[in-house]
Amino acid sequence: MLDLYHAEPAANSLKVLIAIKEKGVAFTSHFVNLHKFEQHEPAFLEVNPNGQVPALVHDGKVITESTVINEYLDEAFSGPPLRPADAYGRARMRIWTKFVDEYFCPALSFIAWHHMIRNITDKLTPEEFEQKVARIPLKEQQDKWRTSAKQGYTKEQLDNWGRQVRTSIARMESQLAVTPWLAGDAFSLADVACFAMAAGVPRMSPNLVNEKDTPRFMDWHARMSARPGVQAALAMPNPVRDTLEASRSQMSSALR
Amino acid sequence: MLDLYHAEPAANSLKVLIAIKEKGVAFTSHFVNLHKFEQHEPAFLEVNPNGQVPALVHDGKVITESTVINEYLDEAFSGPPLRPADAYGRARMRIWTKFVDEYFCPALSFIAWHHMIRNITDKLTPEEFEQKVARIPLKEQQDKWRTSAKQGYTKEQLDNWGRQVRTSIARMESQLAVTPWLAGDAFSLADVACFAMAAGVPRMSPNLVNEKDTPRFMDWHARMSARPGVQAALAMPNPVRDTLEASRSQMSSALR
Repeated sequence: MLDLYHAEPAANSLKVLIAIKEKGVAFTSHFVNLHKFEQHEPAFLEVNPNGQVPALVHDGKVITESTVINEYLDEAFSGPPLRPADAYGRARMRIWTKFVDEYFCPALSFIAWHHMIRNITDKLTPEEFEQKVARIPLKEQQDKWRTSAKQGYTKEQLDNWGRQVRTSIARMESQLAVTPWLAGDAFSLADVACFAMAAGVPRMSPNLVNEKDTPRFMDWHARMSARPGVQAALAMPNPVRDTLEASRSQMSSALR
Repeated sequence: MLDLYHAEPAANSLKVLIAIKEKGVAFTSHFVNLHKFEQHEPAFLEVNPNGQVPALVHDGKVITESTVINEYLDEAFSGPPLRPADAYGRARMRIWTKFVDEYFCPALSFIAWHHMIRNITDKLTPEEFEQKVARIPLKEQQDKWRTSAKQGYTKEQLDNWGRQVRTSIARMESQLAVTPWLAGDAFSLADVACFAMAAGVPRMSPNLVNEKDTPRFMDWHARMSARPGVQAALAMPNPVRDTLEASRSQMSSALR
Protein backbone atom coordinates (compact mmCIF):
# COMPACT_ATOMS: atom_id res chain seq x y z
CA MET A 1 0.00 0.00 0.00
CA LEU A 2 1.60 3.22 -1.20
CA ASP A 3 -0.25 6.54 -1.21
CA LEU A 4 1.21 9.82 -2.39
CA TYR A 5 -0.41 13.12 -1.51
CA HIS A 6 0.82 15.79 -3.89
CA ALA A 7 -0.10 18.99 -5.69
CA GLU A 8 0.35 19.79 -9.41
CA PRO A 9 3.60 18.53 -10.98
CA ALA A 10 5.80 21.47 -9.97
CA ALA A 11 8.50 22.14 -7.37
CA ASN A 12 8.53 19.70 -4.43
CA SER A 13 5.53 17.69 -5.66
CA LEU A 14 7.22 17.28 -9.05
CA LYS A 15 10.38 16.19 -7.26
CA VAL A 16 8.67 13.19 -5.69
CA LEU A 17 6.51 12.42 -8.75
CA ILE A 18 9.66 12.14 -10.89
CA ALA A 19 11.35 9.85 -8.37
CA ILE A 20 8.35 7.55 -8.03
CA LYS A 21 7.87 7.37 -11.81
CA GLU A 22 11.59 6.81 -12.47
CA LYS A 23 11.53 4.08 -9.85
CA GLY A 24 8.51 2.50 -11.54
CA VAL A 25 6.65 1.97 -8.28
CA ALA A 26 2.84 1.63 -8.36
CA PHE A 27 1.07 4.11 -6.09
CA THR A 28 -2.29 5.73 -5.43
CA SER A 29 -2.29 9.43 -6.28
CA HIS A 30 -4.16 11.90 -4.06
CA PHE A 31 -4.30 15.37 -5.57
CA VAL A 32 -4.27 18.13 -2.94
CA ASN A 33 -5.38 21.46 -4.39
CA LEU A 34 -3.20 24.15 -2.82
CA HIS A 35 -5.23 26.82 -4.59
CA LYS A 36 -8.20 25.70 -2.51
CA PHE A 37 -6.10 25.43 0.67
CA GLU A 38 -6.86 21.70 0.86
CA GLN A 39 -3.47 21.10 2.52
CA HIS A 40 -4.87 22.75 5.65
CA GLU A 41 -8.13 20.76 5.72
CA PRO A 42 -8.58 18.42 8.70
CA ALA A 43 -8.57 15.39 6.37
CA PHE A 44 -5.06 16.16 5.17
CA LEU A 45 -3.78 17.32 8.56
CA GLU A 46 -4.43 13.76 9.72
CA VAL A 47 -1.80 12.67 7.21
CA ASN A 48 0.67 15.52 7.80
CA PRO A 49 -0.03 17.76 10.80
CA ASN A 50 2.30 20.38 9.29
CA GLY A 51 -0.13 20.82 6.39
CA GLN A 52 2.46 20.41 3.66
CA VAL A 53 2.64 18.32 0.50
CA PRO A 54 4.07 16.04 -0.69
CA ALA A 55 3.48 13.29 1.88
CA LEU A 56 3.97 9.58 1.34
CA VAL A 57 2.11 6.85 3.24
CA HIS A 58 3.64 3.40 2.98
CA ASP A 59 1.85 0.59 4.82
CA GLY A 60 0.51 3.14 7.31
CA LYS A 61 3.86 4.84 7.87
CA VAL A 62 3.90 8.52 6.98
CA ILE A 63 7.00 10.09 5.44
CA THR A 64 7.17 13.83 4.82
CA GLU A 65 9.70 16.22 3.22
CA SER A 66 10.27 15.62 -0.50
CA THR A 67 14.03 15.13 -0.15
CA VAL A 68 13.57 12.55 2.60
CA ILE A 69 10.76 10.83 0.65
CA ASN A 70 12.99 10.47 -2.41
CA GLU A 71 15.81 8.75 -0.52
CA TYR A 72 13.18 6.55 1.14
CA LEU A 73 11.71 5.52 -2.22
CA ASP A 74 15.16 4.52 -3.41
CA GLU A 75 15.95 2.56 -0.25
CA ALA A 76 12.58 0.85 0.27
CA PHE A 77 11.77 -0.25 -3.30
CA SER A 78 13.53 -2.18 -6.02
CA GLY A 79 13.79 -0.67 -9.49
CA PRO A 80 16.49 1.45 -11.13
CA PRO A 81 18.76 3.03 -8.48
CA LEU A 82 18.29 6.79 -8.08
CA ARG A 83 21.47 7.29 -6.03
CA PRO A 84 25.16 6.70 -6.82
CA ALA A 85 26.46 3.28 -5.79
CA ASP A 86 29.35 4.65 -3.70
CA ALA A 87 29.39 6.71 -0.49
CA TYR A 88 31.27 9.62 -2.03
CA GLY A 89 28.81 9.83 -4.93
CA ARG A 90 25.91 9.83 -2.49
CA ALA A 91 27.60 12.62 -0.51
CA ARG A 92 27.92 14.70 -3.69
CA MET A 93 24.27 13.98 -4.45
CA ARG A 94 23.21 15.11 -0.97
CA ILE A 95 25.16 18.35 -1.24
CA TRP A 96 22.99 19.11 -4.29
CA THR A 97 19.67 18.09 -2.75
CA LYS A 98 20.50 20.14 0.35
CA PHE A 99 21.49 23.12 -1.79
CA VAL A 100 18.15 22.92 -3.60
CA ASP A 101 16.23 22.77 -0.31
CA GLU A 102 18.08 25.60 1.40
CA TYR A 103 18.94 27.95 -1.46
CA PHE A 104 17.55 27.32 -4.96
CA CYS A 105 14.01 26.29 -3.97
CA PRO A 106 13.37 29.07 -1.40
CA ALA A 107 14.59 31.74 -3.85
CA LEU A 108 12.33 30.51 -6.65
CA SER A 109 9.48 29.87 -4.26
CA PHE A 110 9.42 33.37 -2.81
CA ILE A 111 9.49 34.88 -6.31
CA ALA A 112 6.69 32.56 -7.43
CA TRP A 113 4.57 33.38 -4.37
CA HIS A 114 5.04 37.07 -4.87
CA HIS A 115 3.65 36.86 -8.40
CA MET A 116 1.13 34.08 -7.92
CA ILE A 117 -0.53 34.50 -4.60
CA ARG A 118 -2.90 37.28 -5.56
CA ASN A 119 -4.37 35.02 -8.25
CA ILE A 120 -5.48 32.89 -5.33
CA THR A 121 -6.22 35.40 -2.61
CA ASP A 122 -8.00 38.02 -4.74
CA LYS A 123 -10.95 35.64 -4.89
CA LEU A 124 -11.34 35.82 -1.10
CA THR A 125 -12.75 38.51 1.17
CA PRO A 126 -10.32 39.70 3.88
CA GLU A 127 -12.33 37.66 6.41
CA GLU A 128 -12.17 34.51 4.31
CA PHE A 129 -8.44 35.05 3.80
CA GLU A 130 -7.78 35.46 7.52
CA GLN A 131 -9.87 32.36 8.22
CA LYS A 132 -7.79 30.32 5.76
CA VAL A 133 -4.50 31.61 7.13
CA ALA A 134 -5.43 31.17 10.78
CA ARG A 135 -5.63 27.40 10.44
CA ILE A 136 -2.18 26.99 8.85
CA PRO A 137 -0.20 24.87 11.35
CA LEU A 138 3.25 26.42 10.81
CA LYS A 139 3.76 30.04 11.87
CA GLU A 140 6.40 30.52 9.14
CA GLN A 141 3.81 29.56 6.53
CA GLN A 142 1.26 31.94 8.03
CA ASP A 143 3.80 34.76 7.82
CA LYS A 144 4.58 33.90 4.20
CA TRP A 145 0.90 34.01 3.22
CA ARG A 146 0.21 37.25 5.04
CA THR A 147 3.29 39.11 3.77
CA SER A 148 3.01 38.03 0.17
CA ALA A 149 -0.77 38.53 -0.04
CA LYS A 150 -0.80 41.90 1.68
CA GLN A 151 2.19 44.12 1.01
CA GLY A 152 4.17 41.76 -1.22
CA TYR A 153 7.93 41.62 -0.98
CA THR A 154 10.34 44.52 -1.49
CA LYS A 155 12.33 45.09 -4.65
CA GLU A 156 15.49 44.42 -2.64
CA GLN A 157 14.19 41.01 -1.51
CA LEU A 158 13.08 40.08 -5.02
CA ASP A 159 16.42 41.17 -6.48
CA ASN A 160 18.24 39.06 -3.92
CA TRP A 161 16.18 35.96 -4.72
CA GLY A 162 16.71 36.62 -8.43
CA ARG A 163 20.46 36.68 -7.77
CA GLN A 164 20.19 33.38 -5.89
CA VAL A 165 18.40 31.78 -8.83
CA ARG A 166 21.14 32.99 -11.19
CA THR A 167 23.80 31.68 -8.79
CA SER A 168 22.04 28.30 -8.73
CA ILE A 169 21.93 28.07 -12.52
CA ALA A 170 25.61 29.07 -12.71
CA ARG A 171 26.50 26.37 -10.21
CA MET A 172 24.68 23.76 -12.30
CA GLU A 173 26.35 24.98 -15.50
CA SER A 174 29.80 24.67 -13.85
CA GLN A 175 29.18 21.15 -12.60
CA LEU A 176 27.79 20.00 -15.95
CA ALA A 177 31.06 21.13 -17.57
CA VAL A 178 32.80 18.45 -15.48
CA THR A 179 30.29 15.58 -15.27
CA PRO A 180 27.31 14.64 -17.46
CA TRP A 181 24.94 14.54 -14.47
CA LEU A 182 25.02 16.72 -11.37
CA ALA A 183 26.36 14.11 -8.93
CA GLY A 184 28.72 12.44 -11.40
CA ASP A 185 28.47 9.92 -14.23
CA ALA A 186 24.94 8.76 -13.51
CA PHE A 187 21.50 10.31 -13.26
CA SER A 188 20.52 10.69 -9.59
CA LEU A 189 18.22 12.42 -7.13
CA ALA A 190 20.48 15.49 -7.50
CA ASP A 191 19.19 15.87 -11.06
CA VAL A 192 15.64 15.18 -9.92
CA ALA A 193 15.80 17.90 -7.25
CA CYS A 194 17.30 20.53 -9.55
CA PHE A 195 15.01 19.71 -12.47
CA ALA A 196 11.92 19.89 -10.27
CA MET A 197 12.82 23.52 -9.63
CA ALA A 198 14.36 24.43 -13.00
CA ALA A 199 11.88 22.69 -15.32
CA GLY A 200 10.04 25.89 -16.26
CA VAL A 201 13.00 28.25 -16.30
CA PRO A 202 13.92 27.96 -20.03
CA ARG A 203 10.37 28.87 -21.04
CA MET A 204 9.95 31.50 -18.35
CA SER A 205 13.37 33.13 -18.62
CA PRO A 206 15.06 32.59 -22.00
CA ASN A 207 17.33 35.51 -21.10
CA LEU A 208 18.65 33.57 -18.14
CA VAL A 209 19.10 30.10 -19.66
CA ASN A 210 19.73 29.62 -23.39
CA GLU A 211 22.03 27.84 -25.86
CA LYS A 212 24.56 30.67 -25.85
CA ASP A 213 24.98 31.41 -22.13
CA THR A 214 24.18 28.05 -20.53
CA PRO A 215 24.67 25.36 -23.19
CA ARG A 216 25.34 22.60 -20.67
CA PHE A 217 22.26 23.42 -18.65
CA MET A 218 20.17 23.36 -21.85
CA ASP A 219 21.63 20.00 -22.89
CA TRP A 220 20.96 18.56 -19.42
CA HIS A 221 17.43 20.02 -19.45
CA ALA A 222 16.77 18.30 -22.79
CA ARG A 223 18.14 14.97 -21.53
CA MET A 224 15.99 15.24 -18.40
CA SER A 225 12.89 16.20 -20.40
CA ALA A 226 13.36 13.15 -22.65
CA ARG A 227 13.30 10.66 -19.77
CA PRO A 228 10.06 8.62 -19.66
CA GLY A 229 9.87 8.99 -15.87
CA VAL A 230 10.12 12.76 -16.10
CA GLN A 231 7.51 12.86 -18.87
CA ALA A 232 5.13 10.69 -16.86
CA ALA A 233 5.53 12.96 -13.84
CA LEU A 234 4.92 16.13 -15.86
CA ALA A 235 1.82 14.50 -17.39
CA MET A 236 0.13 14.08 -14.00
CA PRO A 237 -3.22 15.90 -13.67
CA ASN A 238 -2.79 19.64 -13.34
CA PRO A 239 -6.14 21.33 -12.73
CA VAL A 240 -4.45 24.60 -11.74
CA ARG A 241 -2.37 24.92 -14.92
CA ASP A 242 -4.21 28.05 -16.14
CA THR A 243 -3.52 29.96 -12.94
CA LEU A 244 0.10 28.95 -13.08
CA GLU A 245 0.44 30.03 -16.69
CA ALA A 246 -1.04 33.44 -15.87
CA SER A 247 1.61 33.94 -13.20
CA ARG A 248 4.48 32.71 -15.30
CA SER A 249 4.78 35.78 -17.50
CA GLN A 250 4.81 38.00 -14.42
CA MET A 251 7.51 35.84 -12.83
CA SER A 252 9.74 35.94 -15.87
CA SER A 253 10.46 39.64 -15.40
CA ALA A 254 11.77 38.91 -11.91
CA LEU A 255 14.28 36.44 -13.32
CA ARG A 256 15.94 38.60 -15.95
CA MET B 1 44.01 9.31 5.01
CA LEU B 2 41.26 11.20 6.81
CA ASP B 3 41.54 14.90 7.62
CA LEU B 4 38.88 16.92 9.42
CA TYR B 5 38.90 20.71 9.35
CA HIS B 6 36.79 22.01 12.19
CA ALA B 7 36.35 24.83 14.70
CA GLU B 8 35.79 24.53 18.46
CA PRO B 9 33.46 21.69 19.57
CA ALA B 10 30.18 23.58 19.12
CA ALA B 11 27.32 23.58 16.59
CA ASN B 12 28.18 22.08 13.19
CA SER B 13 31.80 21.31 14.10
CA LEU B 14 30.62 19.49 17.22
CA LYS B 15 28.12 17.58 15.09
CA VAL B 16 30.87 16.02 12.99
CA LEU B 17 33.28 15.58 15.92
CA ILE B 18 30.66 13.54 17.79
CA ALA B 19 29.97 11.36 14.75
CA ILE B 20 33.65 10.68 14.06
CA LYS B 21 34.35 9.90 17.74
CA GLU B 22 31.25 7.69 18.08
CA LYS B 23 32.32 5.90 14.94
CA GLY B 24 35.80 5.42 16.39
CA VAL B 25 37.57 6.45 13.19
CA ALA B 26 41.15 7.73 13.38
CA PHE B 27 41.61 11.15 11.79
CA THR B 28 43.93 14.13 11.66
CA SER B 29 42.40 17.19 13.29
CA HIS B 30 42.93 20.65 11.77
CA PHE B 31 41.66 23.44 14.00
CA VAL B 32 40.36 26.42 12.03
CA ASN B 33 40.03 29.51 14.21
CA LEU B 34 36.86 31.30 13.17
CA HIS B 35 37.66 34.12 15.58
CA LYS B 36 40.72 34.83 13.44
CA PHE B 37 38.77 34.39 10.18
CA GLU B 38 41.01 31.48 9.23
CA GLN B 39 38.14 29.88 7.31
CA HIS B 40 38.56 32.61 4.68
CA GLU B 41 42.34 32.25 4.36
CA PRO B 42 43.59 31.02 0.96
CA ALA B 43 44.97 27.84 2.58
CA PHE B 44 41.52 26.78 3.75
CA LEU B 45 39.72 28.00 0.62
CA GLU B 46 41.73 25.39 -1.26
CA VAL B 47 39.93 22.79 0.84
CA ASN B 48 36.46 24.39 0.75
CA PRO B 49 36.03 27.30 -1.67
CA ASN B 50 32.89 28.30 0.26
CA GLY B 51 35.04 29.08 3.31
CA GLN B 52 32.99 27.03 5.75
CA VAL B 53 33.86 24.42 8.36
CA PRO B 54 33.58 21.55 8.96
CA ALA B 55 35.14 19.94 5.90
CA LEU B 56 36.32 16.36 5.59
CA VAL B 57 39.05 15.16 3.24
CA HIS B 58 39.14 11.41 2.67
CA ASP B 59 41.88 10.10 0.37
CA GLY B 60 41.88 13.45 -1.44
CA LYS B 61 38.11 13.65 -1.81
CA VAL B 62 36.55 16.69 -0.13
CA ILE B 63 33.15 16.42 1.56
CA THR B 64 31.43 19.52 2.96
CA GLU B 65 28.22 20.18 4.93
CA SER B 66 28.13 18.61 8.38
CA THR B 67 24.92 16.66 7.75
CA VAL B 68 26.30 15.19 4.54
CA ILE B 69 29.66 14.44 6.21
CA ASN B 70 27.94 12.51 9.00
CA GLU B 71 26.03 10.21 6.65
CA TYR B 72 29.25 9.76 4.69
CA LEU B 73 31.18 8.74 7.81
CA ASP B 74 28.55 6.14 8.59
CA GLU B 75 28.53 4.78 5.04
CA ALA B 76 32.26 4.81 4.34
CA PHE B 77 33.64 3.39 7.62
CA SER B 78 32.98 0.38 9.76
CA GLY B 79 32.29 0.82 13.46
CA PRO B 80 29.02 1.22 15.38
CA PRO B 81 26.19 2.20 13.02
CA LEU B 82 24.99 5.79 13.46
CA ARG B 83 21.81 5.35 11.41
CA PRO B 84 18.77 3.10 11.88
CA ALA B 85 18.99 -0.24 10.08
CA ASP B 86 15.68 0.20 8.19
CA ALA B 87 14.62 2.70 5.50
CA TYR B 88 11.75 4.13 7.56
CA GLY B 89 14.05 4.72 10.53
CA ARG B 90 16.54 6.48 8.30
CA ALA B 91 13.73 8.65 6.90
CA ARG B 92 12.73 9.65 10.42
CA MET B 93 16.36 10.39 11.19
CA ARG B 94 16.69 12.59 8.10
CA ILE B 95 13.57 14.56 8.96
CA TRP B 96 15.35 15.49 12.20
CA THR B 97 18.71 16.32 10.66
CA LYS B 98 16.93 18.45 8.04
CA PHE B 99 14.88 20.18 10.73
CA VAL B 100 18.08 21.03 12.60
CA ASP B 101 19.72 22.43 9.45
CA GLU B 102 16.77 24.51 8.33
CA TYR B 103 15.14 25.60 11.58
CA PHE B 104 16.84 24.86 14.91
CA CYS B 105 20.43 25.66 13.90
CA PRO B 106 19.70 28.93 12.04
CA ALA B 107 17.59 30.24 14.94
CA LEU B 108 20.30 29.50 17.51
CA SER B 109 23.03 30.65 15.18
CA PHE B 110 21.53 34.08 14.54
CA ILE B 111 21.00 34.62 18.28
CA ALA B 112 24.58 33.52 18.99
CA TRP B 113 25.99 35.78 16.29
CA HIS B 114 24.04 38.73 17.56
CA HIS B 115 25.56 38.36 21.01
CA MET B 116 29.00 37.10 20.09
CA ILE B 117 30.16 38.88 17.01
CA ARG B 118 31.17 42.13 18.66
CA ASN B 119 33.58 40.16 20.87
CA ILE B 120 35.35 39.40 17.63
CA THR B 121 34.84 42.52 15.57
CA ASP B 122 35.46 45.11 18.28
CA LYS B 123 39.14 44.23 18.05
CA LEU B 124 39.23 45.38 14.42
CA THR B 125 39.25 48.85 12.86
CA PRO B 126 36.41 49.44 10.35
CA GLU B 127 38.97 49.05 7.55
CA GLU B 128 40.25 45.75 8.91
CA PHE B 129 36.67 44.55 9.32
CA GLU B 130 35.73 45.44 5.75
CA GLN B 131 38.89 43.75 4.51
CA LYS B 132 37.99 40.54 6.37
CA VAL B 133 34.39 40.58 5.15
CA ALA B 134 35.24 41.40 1.53
CA ARG B 135 37.04 38.07 1.07
CA ILE B 136 34.16 35.93 2.35
CA PRO B 137 33.15 33.77 -0.64
CA LEU B 138 29.39 33.57 0.05
CA LYS B 139 27.36 36.77 -0.23
CA GLU B 140 24.89 35.47 2.39
CA GLN B 141 27.77 35.15 4.87
CA GLN B 142 29.00 38.64 4.05
CA ASP B 143 25.52 40.01 4.74
CA LYS B 144 25.35 38.12 8.04
CA TRP B 145 28.69 39.57 9.22
CA ARG B 146 27.85 43.11 8.17
CA THR B 147 24.36 43.15 9.66
CA SER B 148 25.24 41.53 12.95
CA ALA B 149 28.46 43.53 13.45
CA LYS B 150 26.95 46.88 12.51
CA GLN B 151 23.34 47.40 13.48
CA GLY B 152 22.66 44.04 15.04
CA TYR B 153 19.30 42.35 14.60
CA THR B 154 15.92 43.76 15.60
CA LYS B 155 14.01 42.72 18.69
CA GLU B 156 11.34 41.25 16.43
CA GLN B 157 13.91 39.06 14.67
CA LEU B 158 15.48 37.95 17.95
CA ASP B 159 12.06 37.17 19.45
CA ASN B 160 11.19 35.12 16.40
CA TRP B 161 14.41 33.08 16.62
CA GLY B 162 13.82 32.62 20.35
CA ARG B 163 10.37 31.24 19.54
CA GLN B 164 11.92 28.87 17.00
CA VAL B 165 14.37 27.57 19.62
CA ARG B 166 11.48 26.96 22.04
CA THR B 167 9.52 25.21 19.28
CA SER B 168 12.54 23.00 18.57
CA ILE B 169 12.91 22.01 22.22
CA ALA B 170 9.17 21.29 22.44
CA ARG B 171 9.39 19.09 19.39
CA MET B 172 12.24 17.12 20.95
CA GLU B 173 10.37 16.78 24.24
CA SER B 174 7.30 15.41 22.40
CA GLN B 175 9.30 12.85 20.45
CA LEU B 176 11.19 11.69 23.54
CA ALA B 177 7.84 10.95 25.19
CA VAL B 178 7.30 8.33 22.49
CA THR B 179 10.76 6.91 21.79
CA PRO B 180 13.97 6.86 23.86
CA TRP B 181 16.02 8.42 21.04
CA LEU B 182 14.88 10.97 18.49
CA ALA B 183 14.64 8.64 15.49
CA GLY B 184 13.32 5.63 17.43
CA ASP B 185 14.76 2.92 19.64
CA ALA B 186 18.42 3.54 18.86
CA PHE B 187 20.86 6.42 19.13
CA SER B 188 21.39 7.96 15.67
CA LEU B 189 22.63 10.99 13.76
CA ALA B 190 19.30 12.65 14.68
CA ASP B 191 20.48 12.76 18.30
CA VAL B 192 23.93 13.91 17.21
CA ALA B 193 22.50 16.80 15.19
CA CYS B 194 20.14 17.98 17.93
CA PHE B 195 22.71 17.60 20.72
CA ALA B 196 25.32 19.54 18.75
CA MET B 197 22.93 22.50 18.88
CA ALA B 198 21.34 21.91 22.28
CA ALA B 199 24.42 20.93 24.28
CA GLY B 200 24.79 24.32 25.97
CA VAL B 201 21.10 25.14 26.39
CA PRO B 202 20.59 23.69 29.93
CA ARG B 203 23.46 25.78 31.27
CA MET B 204 22.59 28.84 29.24
CA SER B 205 18.83 28.76 29.69
CA PRO B 206 17.68 26.85 32.78
CA ASN B 207 14.35 28.64 32.41
CA LEU B 208 13.83 27.03 29.04
CA VAL B 209 14.97 23.47 29.77
CA ASN B 210 14.77 21.95 33.25
CA GLU B 211 13.56 18.89 35.16
CA LYS B 212 10.08 20.30 35.62
CA ASP B 213 9.21 21.59 32.15
CA THR B 214 11.27 19.33 29.90
CA PRO B 215 12.10 16.16 31.89
CA ARG B 216 12.55 13.99 28.81
CA PHE B 217 14.87 16.47 27.18
CA MET B 218 16.95 16.59 30.39
CA ASP B 219 17.11 12.80 30.60
CA TRP B 220 18.15 12.58 26.94
CA HIS B 221 20.72 15.33 27.45
CA ALA B 222 22.21 13.37 30.38
CA ARG B 223 22.31 10.14 28.35
CA MET B 224 23.99 11.97 25.48
CA SER B 225 26.49 13.69 27.79
CA ALA B 226 27.46 10.31 29.28
CA ARG B 227 28.44 8.78 25.96
CA PRO B 228 32.22 8.38 25.56
CA GLY B 229 32.06 9.60 21.96
CA VAL B 230 30.24 12.77 22.98
CA GLN B 231 32.70 13.36 25.83
CA ALA B 232 35.66 12.88 23.51
CA ALA B 233 34.20 15.37 21.05
CA LEU B 234 33.51 17.97 23.73
CA ALA B 235 37.09 17.52 25.03
CA MET B 236 38.62 18.60 21.72
CA PRO B 237 40.87 21.68 21.95
CA ASN B 238 38.88 24.86 22.44
CA PRO B 239 41.18 27.90 22.35
CA VAL B 240 38.23 30.29 22.02
CA ARG B 241 36.36 29.00 25.09
CA ASP B 242 36.76 32.25 27.03
CA THR B 243 35.18 34.35 24.30
CA LEU B 244 32.34 31.87 24.03
CA GLU B 245 31.75 31.90 27.77
CA ALA B 246 31.62 35.70 27.78
CA SER B 247 28.88 35.60 25.17
CA ARG B 248 26.89 32.85 26.81
CA SER B 249 25.43 34.93 29.58
CA GLN B 250 24.33 37.55 27.07
CA MET B 251 22.69 34.87 24.94
CA SER B 252 20.80 33.37 27.79
CA SER B 253 18.55 36.40 28.11
CA ALA B 254 17.49 35.96 24.51
CA LEU B 255 16.34 32.41 25.22
CA ARG B 256 14.06 33.04 28.17
